Amino acid sequence: MNSKTLHKVSYGMYLVSSKKGEKYNGQIANTVFQITSEPPTVAVSINKQNLTHEFIRESKVFTVAILNKDVPMTFIGLFGFKSGREVEKFEGIKYRPGQTGVPIVLDYSIGFLEAQVIDEIDAGTHTIFLGRVIDADIFVDEEPMTYAYYHEIKRGAAPQTAPTYIKNEPPAEVGSGEKYKCNVCGYIYDQEQGDPETGIAPGTPFSRLPADWVCPICGAGKEQFSIA
Amino acid sequence: MNSKTLHKVSYGMYLVSSKKGEKYNGQIANTVFQITSEPPTVAVSINKQNLTHEFIRESKVFTVAILNKDVPMTFIGLFGFKSGREVEKFEGIKYRPGQTGVPIVLDYSIGFLEAQVIDEIDAGTHTIFLGRVIDADIFVDEEPMTYAYYHEIKRGAAPQTAPTYIKNEPPAEVGSGEKYKCNVCGYIYDQEQGDPETGIAPGTPFSRLPADWVCPICGAGKEQFSIA
Repeated sequence: MNSKTLHKVSYGMYLVSSKKGEKYNGQIANTVFQITSEPPTVAVSINKQNLTHEFIRESKVFTVAILNKDVPMTFIGLFGFKSGREVEKFEGIKYRPGQTGVPIVLDYSIGFLEAQVIDEIDAGTHTIFLGRVIDADIFVDEEPMTYAYYHEIKRGAAPQTAPTYIKNEPPAEVGSGEKYKCNVCGYIYDQEQGDPETGIAPGTPFSRLPADWVCPICGAGKEQFSIA
Repeated sequence: MNSKTLHKVSYGMYLVSSKKGEKYNGQIANTVFQITSEPPTVAVSINKQNLTHEFIRESKVFTVAILNKDVPMTFIGLFGFKSGREVEKFEGIKYRPGQTGVPIVLDYSIGFLEAQVIDEIDAGTHTIFLGRVIDADIFVDEEPMTYAYYHEIKRGAAPQTAPTYIKNEPPAEVGSGEKYKCNVCGYIYDQEQGDPETGIAPGTPFSRLPADWVCPICGAGKEQFSIA
């Protein structure tokens, strides 16, 4: 079995949010998909270890922000690689409450879905929540970010709790000495491209990065990187 | 609620096949997605009216062919808009049997997944089948077809039984007289582009199409078209 075949399945990139009492949490997800058109229902697959899972189980409501192509890696890092158990993810984030009180994130979003959970299926490490869509709107008629775009253009990786995570994924190119891989999240620092989002110009060698530079996705320090 | 928001969810394009005794059937689907990585599981959403649904229920096995960008509309039409109750879909199609005996379609496919159903969830008009992946391979390392590509570049439509079907979807452009819409499947004949797949040159007016020309997707006759 060639497990890389699963990489050929196409996805978008979403921020799935929920609440528990007065607390909010959200996470990056790519397995969001419409199931029926009448009535409109969507399914999301969420890792049982994630705080968002606990919140959706509790409140039975969630929102989905459909991310645009401009979303910076730091935003993906915050919602995709950090836990709401350790950081308050919604601090400094623009959102408005939906009909159910769950935040509808406005930053880097082209539109949203708001849903009430009507069923769930146990899928081992993940739960698939089936939600009836009760509200939805498009903010701006742009193309959504796809997982392929995130992977190829933004050089993004999958966290260990994602359905699409692959253990010991080999780096794109080996031994050039100009690429360094984050051992925590798999992000590749490519000297040729630099890291414009954090002000690192193209052509900057890894050794010349500021001492306090951290992985733009997961926040790991330079010592967590090894030659790719 | 703006139900067009659901159009911003990203999908691939797949041919999901199954069997019942010695009989094979398959259908186009776009809701295929990985759920867990250990063990690898995938979910597919299938309309209960479809013959493929009956076959998967019965045999508990299915394969997924990941379609490439060259797949002609006639192929989509055969598997997506016709029923296996009326036509033998596998006649003239290249395939090989998988481990479970379900056909792995090779035409216009960049790779396949073969799965055994381990659970299902009732979602009203559709059933979500959760399958454990028992075999998978990539035939050719190409980009897969996405639903967005099918919609925008190939001008394709959704059948009434698809999760993404929208009733009375307005045509892309109204009243030009140079576009005709198939009332059965929603395909748009655009005079400017013609229909190169069936030998109709760009610039051919609808009225000049051969009398036996049929909709390249669903096979409806010219009389089923109206000005878009």
